[in-house]
Amino acid sequence: MSSAIDRYLEANLEAYLQETIRLCAQPSVSATGEGVLECASLVEQILRQRGFQTWKIEGYGNPVVVGRAQGRSERTLLFYNHYDVQPPEPLELWDSPPFEPQIREGKLFARGAKDDKGEFMARIAAVDAARAAHGGELPCGVLFVVEGNEEVGSPGIARFVQDHLDLLRCDGAVWEEGGIDQEGRPGTSLGRRGILAVELEVQTLSRDAHSGSAHILPSAAWRMVRVLASLKDENERVLIPGFYEKVRPASEEDLELLRRLPDSEAYLRESFGVRGFVNNLSGFELRKAVFNPTCNIQGITAGYQGPGTKTVIPARASAKLDFRLVPDQDPTDILKKLRAHLDAEGFTDVRIVHADHMFPFRTSPKHPLVDLAARTAQEVYQKPYQLIPMTGGSSPVYAFAGPLGIPVIDAGVGFGVSNRTHAPNEHIRIQDFHNAARHIARILEGFAGI
Amino acid sequence: MSSAIDRYLEANLEAYLQETIRLCAQPSVSATGEGVLECASLVEQILRQRGFQTWKIEGYGNPVVVGRAQGRSERTLLFYNHYDVQPPEPLELWDSPPFEPQIREGKLFARGAKDDKGEFMARIAAVDAARAAHGGELPCGVLFVVEGNEEVGSPGIARFVQDHLDLLRCDGAVWEEGGIDQEGRPGTSLGRRGILAVELEVQTLSRDAHSGSAHILPSAAWRMVRVLASLKDENERVLIPGFYEKVRPASEEDLELLRRLPDSEAYLRESFGVRGFVNNLSGFELRKAVFNPTCNIQGITAGYQGPGTKTVIPARASAKLDFRLVPDQDPTDILKKLRAHLDAEGFTDVRIVHADHMFPFRTSPKHPLVDLAARTAQEVYQKPYQLIPMTGGSSPVYAFAGPLGIPVIDAGVGFGVSNRTHAPNEHIRIQDFHNAARHIARILEGFAGI
Repeated sequence: MSSAIDRYLEANLEAYLQETIRLCAQPSVSATGEGVLECASLVEQILRQRGFQTWKIEGYGNPVVVGRAQGRSERTLLFYNHYDVQPPEPLELWDSPPFEPQIREGKLFARGAKDDKGEFMARIAAVDAARAAHGGELPCGVLFVVEGNEEVGSPGIARFVQDHLDLLRCDGAVWEEGGIDQEGRPGTSLGRRGILAVELEVQTLSRDAHSGSAHILPSAAWRMVRVLASLKDENERVLIPGFYEKVRPASEEDLELLRRLPDSEAYLRESFGVRGFVNNLSGFELRKAVFNPTCNIQGITAGYQGPGTKTVIPARASAKLDFRLVPDQDPTDILKKLRAHLDAEGFTDVRIVHADHMFPFRTSPKHPLVDLAARTAQEVYQKPYQLIPMTGGSSPVYAFAGPLGIPVIDAGVGFGVSNRTHAPNEHIRIQDFHNAARHIARILEGFAGI
Repeated sequence: MSSAIDRYLEANLEAYLQETIRLCAQPSVSATGEGVLECASLVEQILRQRGFQTWKIEGYGNPVVVGRAQGRSERTLLFYNHYDVQPPEPLELWDSPPFEPQIREGKLFARGAKDDKGEFMARIAAVDAARAAHGGELPCGVLFVVEGNEEVGSPGIARFVQDHLDLLRCDGAVWEEGGIDQEGRPGTSLGRRGILAVELEVQTLSRDAHSGSAHILPSAAWRMVRVLASLKDENERVLIPGFYEKVRPASEEDLELLRRLPDSEAYLRESFGVRGFVNNLSGFELRKAVFNPTCNIQGITAGYQGPGTKTVIPARASAKLDFRLVPDQDPTDILKKLRAHLDAEGFTDVRIVHADHMFPFRTSPKHPLVDLAARTAQEVYQKPYQLIPMTGGSSPVYAFAGPLGIPVIDAGVGFGVSNRTHAPNEHIRIQDFHNAARHIARILEGFAGI
């Protein structure tokens, strides 16, 4: 059967790349709204062409596209993906325009090529291959949930799942991405950090003032610097009282899984041109740091940023932050603690103008789905399967896994480290796309039997 | 004679407003270069139309326009003005477009209406009026220096003066603006703070990274926050070692002049919607603070600033700063101390990518030109003349007053406090324009005799 899968994908790879190119050429920036509705329709069309029954569900931000196809077995595997992408800026750092996909040197370059349109299309190819290898019938039921708000924190997805438990009934899920790391080693994450993303804003003057009055008029820029400096010390410790209260430390099992993972220090150092890591971490300590929650500045806006000089005191300043949270931190609790901290420090005039969150998530390494993914990965990649106890990023896994009571694994084009995810020149390697389809088709084949 | 001046200006006010509108309609943003060359030509044309011999001098940034006209007396009065303006951003806060001048409610609105095109045109009107009142002959020689880099710190003007001492020979100068305050009280500044404007830049990664790696990858935004926090404490004290070393404290005479000045606290509070001033200053302490040097953040640039959220670690961050300096601080010395401070604090990776400066300046309240300005101001404004020992802003007065050995006073449309200088909805009151021309024409009339 697997050889039939491989023959099908070998013969049809070019067609799937072309379909991926068409999908990536459609902008779908959830932060600005650019092209998201058109992209949702395109995704629905891709599913319908495969005979999926589809729903485009409104009321949870950008439409959620759901597709369901019956299989020989009643067991159903859910694929979570998203059709929205990160903003493409800064545009000048792209070697080819972000929404004009280009294949060069065995890679496909585009905003969304990796995150998450290439991943989605590898699954579509896998579905087609599994069906072709089984006489036109899927070996198990397949359920796609393709949302459009992932890159802005999936604010509506938890409510969406709660409202559609019947429609979403299934026996396991494959999350949006993952499957191999930058060295081509297969594996899955067993946990993801949560996130609290906030925007802080402060205004000290009714309008910008001439900087010749800086001895008397209060500056919003300086106030924001004080606010930010109050949030974290120079050793990266977050200073919000109670921030670490509910942190569950890494267990011995977690540490053992971490120890078995390959070392990515040199790779990271080279890939990001890093002179020194945070807190001068290295070796096992660097790996272990994923169990630390973080406080990151996404961006700061204050005053004049054009060329040359402008002698103004900024009246307004804002900062976008994200906190990555570990089990059992609760983002709604951290938001309250942030507000309390600001008030206690005298920053009652600093407003939290926006807040989104996701909960942290853990899963068991013992589930048969993990074993199935491991066996089939070994077949495709010829390498042992890695179990990653915690991943640095966030995703709304908890929103599905909780209410649906299902195990969730990663399988896909890669972990993204080498793919410039969220950055200029985002890309996938075509070989990774091909292998992801081969792996996922095998999981579809085996899922009925576990 | 003065009544002839007043009759001329009364009869021709509308024509001078129209000429001011034409000048303000020409953008001339020195920070970006927009329209500056066209504006220099327009200024030269305005001078030539009055029979001035003109020079457009290159080699010092944007062209310096110089105009010289002979008078009955050999004594010559210099007018310093500038034709460049601040960037008009943020555009959405203007009630009418910045480069489409509009007269409403007795005011002329435009970028540059006050700073400094309206001031220049009031002087042109005064020159015409003085000539008309004296049978077509100027009572003294007049020298205009109209530069195009004032809003970016006049980086070339000191060298320009040094290179043109013969061309610039004169017996006194009237600086770009001033003359009345927001309550219509006439006066002049006897000092101006110097400035050191710098741009700091730091890069921690070769490219932006996903914020899921914030536990290990260093953030340029956080590093810039640390850099800024190291520069000033929460009581506004600059922490650069040696920063205050050469500060000459306000003298008893300075304090006495300050005490005689009217109180502007309520005005400032209302005008800028200020809840509290820097360090909760009030009363005489608020007034005295102009003798404190400052460290102002003009703007901060880091990471994602668009709508919504973007989960990135910024690879680069920059901040524009200006330090306002008091006698006898030396901006070139402060720049060295800033670099030494950054290095000592471990910020050797933080680059100073740009630095401009002007020296602080003081003049004597005893000079006859000050007395002439006071007498004629009393005639025009019917109010006593204020002597302001120090002004918060900066200007290249020192560059002229030093090498040319001349006294320098202010006379013009206003001190700018009520004019939204450098901000949206910049404007002049037409009555102020009219009175400025009346005052300056009287100074031209009296200058031969002092």
